[in-house]
Order: sequence, then structure tokens, then C-alpha cells
Amino acid sequence: MNYSKYFSADVPSFLRSPVREIFRKVDLSAICSFAGGYPAACTFPLADIPGLTERVLSKYGTKALQYGATQGVLELRELIASRYGVPVSQVQITTSSQQGIDVCARVFLDPGDVVLASNPIYLGALQSFKAYRAEVVDLNDFMAGEGVVSQTASASLRPESPCHFDRPEGVEKSPAIKFIYVIPDFNNPTGKTLTLAEREELVALARELDCLIVEDSPYRELRYSGEAVTSIRELAPERTLQLGSFSKIFAPGFRLGWIIGPEELLEQIYVCKQCLDLCPPVLDQYLAAEFLGSGLLDANLEKSVAEYRRRRDLMVSLLEKYMPSGVSWTYPEGGLFLWLTLPPAVDTVALYDKALAAGVAYVAGSFFYTDGSHRNTMRLNFSFVAEAKMEPGIKLLASLVREADFGAGR
Amino acid sequence: MNYSKYFSADVPSFLRSPVREIFRKVDLSAICSFAGGYPAACTFPLADIPGLTERVLSKYGTKALQYGATQGVLELRELIASRYGVPVSQVQITTSSQQGIDVCARVFLDPGDVVLASNPIYLGALQSFKAYRAEVVDLNDFMAGEGVVSQTASASLRPESPCHFDRPEGVEKSPAIKFIYVIPDFNNPTGKTLTLAEREELVALARELDCLIVEDSPYRELRYSGEAVTSIRELAPERTLQLGSFSKIFAPGFRLGWIIGPEELLEQIYVCKQCLDLCPPVLDQYLAAEFLGSGLLDANLEKSVAEYRRRRDLMVSLLEKYMPSGVSWTYPEGGLFLWLTLPPAVDTVALYDKALAAGVAYVAGSFFYTDGSHRNTMRLNFSFVAEAKMEPGIKLLASLVREADFGAGR
Repeated sequence: MNYSKYFSADVPSFLRSPVREIFRKVDLSAICSFAGGYPAACTFPLADIPGLTERVLSKYGTKALQYGATQGVLELRELIASRYGVPVSQVQITTSSQQGIDVCARVFLDPGDVVLASNPIYLGALQSFKAYRAEVVDLNDFMAGEGVVSQTASASLRPESPCHFDRPEGVEKSPAIKFIYVIPDFNNPTGKTLTLAEREELVALARELDCLIVEDSPYRELRYSGEAVTSIRELAPERTLQLGSFSKIFAPGFRLGWIIGPEELLEQIYVCKQCLDLCPPVLDQYLAAEFLGSGLLDANLEKSVAEYRRRRDLMVSLLEKYMPSGVSWTYPEGGLFLWLTLPPAVDTVALYDKALAAGVAYVAGSFFYTDGSHRNTMRLNFSFVAEAKMEPGIKLLASLVREADFGAGR
Repeated sequence: MNYSKYFSADVPSFLRSPVREIFRKVDLSAICSFAGGYPAACTFPLADIPGLTERVLSKYGTKALQYGATQGVLELRELIASRYGVPVSQVQITTSSQQGIDVCARVFLDPGDVVLASNPIYLGALQSFKAYRAEVVDLNDFMAGEGVVSQTASASLRPESPCHFDRPEGVEKSPAIKFIYVIPDFNNPTGKTLTLAEREELVALARELDCLIVEDSPYRELRYSGEAVTSIRELAPERTLQLGSFSKIFAPGFRLGWIIGPEELLEQIYVCKQCLDLCPPVLDQYLAAEFLGSGLLDANLEKSVAEYRRRRDLMVSLLEKYMPSGVSWTYPEGGLFLWLTLPPAVDTVALYDKALAAGVAYVAGSFFYTDGSHRNTMRLNFSFVAEAKMEPGIKLLASLVREADFGAGR
């Protein structure tokens, strides 16, 4: 049977995650994987789960197993509201922060609409935006050079302006710039953090373009050095949807995140979420509430931060020790990733199968570029691989890089 | 700030669930609610959860808290495959069976596309189809009368045919009938079950129209009397996506369901699910696998079926005892609902606030009709209210119905 005629017009725009495809085929425990955005298993509060479960079940009984409110259970929303200093009416629980991204795409984007985002961009966000046939346009085009913000805004309706987008064929209305999508803290994939001045410029741009901002903030609490920078939500609460995640501060297996934003926007997201899954997982939400409310989360976070700081420092020192000249990398103040730029002759897409066969995995940087460019870059995750396995892994990767560069005739 | 300009063109088509809206405002424990599709809390395996958790954590360790495969954890997929006699490659785990419905809408429907469905229809499905601006067309128009099936198919391209749909304004391609959506066992909202002949007719229609079938099957294992009828998937495996749910056989708080269907269709659903939430909740999936694999599920199901059979029989006997003449109802062989037809003068939408104030809730039948008709019908859930509370609830409801009918001047 040929099924292609049944699919929606969106389906040809669906992107597969190369990261998820790797994990579909490879047993992670058998190799040294710097590929995924996986937290370290040793940071999971495994020993706390039975006790948390007992407490939740004795406190809430069968309510913890029944359907829950679409907005999320009140106890968890209140704890998040209090942690981030917002009213509870501005908190929606999501079934993963990926759902947070996807629901923003669904509620705001029509085919042809524009999302401004840094290039490279987080893959899961690119997948969601593309699946609604939105255009992802490089934010740097708007941010580069002095005075560009106001020029851009004033020129936004003229055909020659970078803000002008032609109505694509077969699309029913003129596209609009709906939001800026940004991971300002310890960016995925680059590991970079926006300065306060950069955030202010971005907010000014959003105000001039009169668009929303989706501030994707899954790593914000994982800072290992430097000082916290004011969040974009705090700079522009009236137009920012800030996405949070329990995946890196509790455990990803619970699939819990949240959105903080203006009530008028959350109200439509709430109605949309009724279709998506009625409500987030209920027992998991109560476990998260108990973990957060009892102070266990903060104690565990402190240990995780110390662990990840050691792993980051180790990876950076190993890169310094083993990588050939011509290789550079970002120095992330937090999060899970750093970003390598290799000599121009090294093609990380071509190198990938060889690396996997040799026992080391990474994600080719070009996967994060909307145009597939920058084939001499890669994203390395430093959170997942245990310290003892990191040195052989980086040493192996460095030798593959050296070989590829040499093989290219340098 | 006026946010309306940011919303996608789909947003005006979003429907709010009147059921969810009721639960947003009303404390269920304070009233007698025949409204929601809630399982009885006494059927939840509350006492088993700590033991299941311990076993899962000792068997899988931190793997149960880490990210999982997008298709779902293999152990659970294998158990479902074996229970329903299909290869594991034909099983996708979903984060709730509502997500199963929604992902079908997302992968198959464009604005203007047609879903054939019974009218009345399950609200959550109507919400999802409408949110993609699909048309929901009454299946009975296609099924009524001898020979209609083949007439319909042969006439499907002619403008006068009931299968012909004009291209709506602003829509980029001609609409198509993408699938038939049906709950064949213990329908929500009517409680009715399709006979084998009706299923065969429906499959013949799908084959003649060359469309898919989404067989929504959340209640199939909750049969209290009569004989099981062959599932539609078994009749037409090549074109059926069968949606299952753990909500009624384990607990809804886990938000777990599954889709059984052709691999080619599941492959696109898998790619789509990467955007939706990366993977279903992992610990919850292992708990479900342990519950199912250990035989606890079947033992618990047997008790649930006995409990629900008593509740159904009690509600039917109370309706016979208290309802005035001119009121009729369906006799469901399973599931959670029965469907009342009241005298034409009784408006269940108008009656609703009064009923709620008096302490009894139901869902007005017209909410399940795409055109809001049938205002003299209501859906009653018999699974949620404890037996002791059922008699005062039905007695009260009957008196309200009698009063409304009398007040209308009969």
C-alpha cells in the first residue's frame, strides 16, 4: 500500500533528529558518547525516589493517579511561581520543555511565518518550527552592526528590508515575524551565554518588531562559573514566554517542564494543551513538587553543579592537551555543551561513521545550521561521559581530527 | 498589550473542552459528578505502586530516569505487541491516547481535509480535528441506507456527491477524506458498540473511499456483558491505526497510551513525536511494563470490570426507578458512559447551572454534536461516582428533569 497520499502537507517538512537517529542505532553504554544532551546518571536522585513516592501517595492518595488539571497540579505550579517570583496564574506545566517549544509553534506559527533565531539553533526547536513550515531566519542578520535594530524596524515593511518576507506560494496569508527564539544561557549547541547588553538589544529588537520572545531556558540553573545574567523574561515580561525544564535539575525520564508568561498567552496554550494530552503526568508532577518543596532539589542541584563543573574543566583541559593546533572551542559558564571549530578541511559529517566505529560519538555542527553549513564544527557534550572515560574519548577524537586534517592534504 | 495578532490562523478554531472547563471551576469531591470520563479511584492499584517502583528501580536503575527512545521503552512495546498479537515494530507508545489522536490529526490533516466520524463524537477528538481546521462530517450520511457505500464511492468525485468537498477559501489544496474516526467499543459519548456487520461495512467504506481508519479503543478491555467483537484493526490492518490507553486499565495519572498500525504510518508518527515531547515518560512506562508483565494488570482489570458492572447495573436500575416517562437511555455493554434522551422540551444546556448548584453534574449531549444540536440529550458517566452516592444523584437529576419538562408546559 502506498501511504504517501494520506500525509498532511506539513509532513515533507518534518526533520528527523540526527541525535535521536544515532541513539536509535547505537548502544550508548558501549561507546564514549559526547553526542546527546543527556544529564549524568549519577546526578539523578535514584535513592530518593522510593521515599518521595511513599510521601506523595500518603499525602495525595489516588489523586496522584487520577487525571489532573490541564494547567498542571496546583502544588507544583505554586512552587515554580514562588521560585521564579511570578504569580501562579503565569505558570503552565508542560509534558517536557520540548512540548513547551512545540506548543508555542502550534499556537503562534502559520506556514511561511518567521522565527528569528541564532544560527546554529537547537535541533528540537528547528524540528518544531519546520514542521509548521515556518521560516527560521538568522537573528544575527538583525543584530549585526551598530544601529541595525532601529534601521531594521523602520525598514521592516520595505521589500529590500531583511524584515520583509514574500508570501510563499500556496500560503494563505502574508507571513509575519512571530517571535525570536533564543537560549540565552549556555546555549545549545554553542555553550555561549548572552551578556546583559546583548539581551537588552534583543528585547529592543522584539519591541521594535513588535514580536514575542521564546526564551528557552533549560540549563539556567546549571552555572559553574561567572555571574548570573538577568533573564529576558525579567527584561520584557509582557512579551516573553520562558520555558523551563525539570530534565536537568530532577531527571529527564519524568518529561516535565513549564512555561512562564503573560496570562493571555498561557490561556491559549492551555486550550491547545487540552488537545495535546489533556494534562501532564500527575504522579510525576507530585514527585517533582515533593522534590522541590522539600529542599531536596536544591541540595541535589548543588552536587550536580559541582560534578558538571569538574567534567567541564576536565574536558577543556583534555582538549588543550590533545587537540591539534587550528582547533578552537567555546568555554561555557554552564550547561551541557561546548562547541568546537576545526580546521576548514575537516568535515565532521564525513568523519562521523569512522568515529562511531572507533567508539566515540559527537554531533556534527552542520546539523544545527538551517543551511547545513559549517561542516568543520561539532558539538561536544561534557555532562554524560564519566570522568574516567573522558580522557580516552577526547584522545581518540583528537587523533581522528588530526588524521582527517592531515588526510585532507594540509 | 493586545496579543491577538500573534496567534496562528488555527487558534480561532480551537475549542475549549466544556468537560475540562467544568473541572477547572468545580471541586469534584463536593458534588455528585456524572460528568467526566474518570475511572473509579478504587480501581487504581495504589498499594502496588511502591512495590512496582522498587522493582523497576532495582531492575533498570538510572535508566528509568534518563531520556528514553522516542518509540517508547522496548519492554513495554514488546508486552503490548504480545498482548495484541502484532510485531513490536507496529507499536508506538504515546504520552496519553489523547496524544495518539492529536498526532494522527497532525500527521494526516490539512485545513479543509475531511474526517468522517459519528455525530455525536468524542470531544477530545473533535478538539484536535478542529484545531487543524479539518471538517468533521457525519459518518451516518455515508452509512445510511442500503447500497450507499458503493454509490458513495463511485460518486465521490462528482460535485453533487456527499464525498465531494469544495476547496475552502484560503486553503492551499483540495481537501480529501483522510480517515474515518470511530470508537467502536462502548462509544464515548453514546455507550454503543458496533456489531461485526457494522464494522465490516465501515471497513468496506474505508476501502472504497481509500482512506485510513483511526480506531480509538480506550475502553475495549472494559466489557461487562455480551461478547467481544472483532476489532477494526483485525479486519483492516493495512489501513487502521488503533489507539489504546493505560488510563482505564492502570491509571490516567501516568498519561500513557499506544498506537498499533502499519510501520510506514508509525514511522512518520515517530518523527513527529520527536517534536512533540522527544519520548513518553520513562519511569511511568517501566511501571506500566512491570504492572502488565507481572500479571497484576489482568488481576486488577478483573476487579475493575466487576466494580464497573455493578455501577452500570445500579445506574440503569436507578434510571428505571426515578426517571419520568419520555426519558430513554442506551444500555452499554462496557466502558464508562450511557446516553440519555430526554423529552424534547428539556434543554440540558440550560439546565446545567441549576444542576451544578443542586450538586449534580453531567455533560450536555449537544457539546458532542458538531452543530450543537440535540439539546435534549446528556452523557452520564457511571464509573466515577461511588455506589452509595449514586442513588441520591440520580434521584436529584430525575427531579430536575421532571421539573424542567413540567416547566416547559407539558
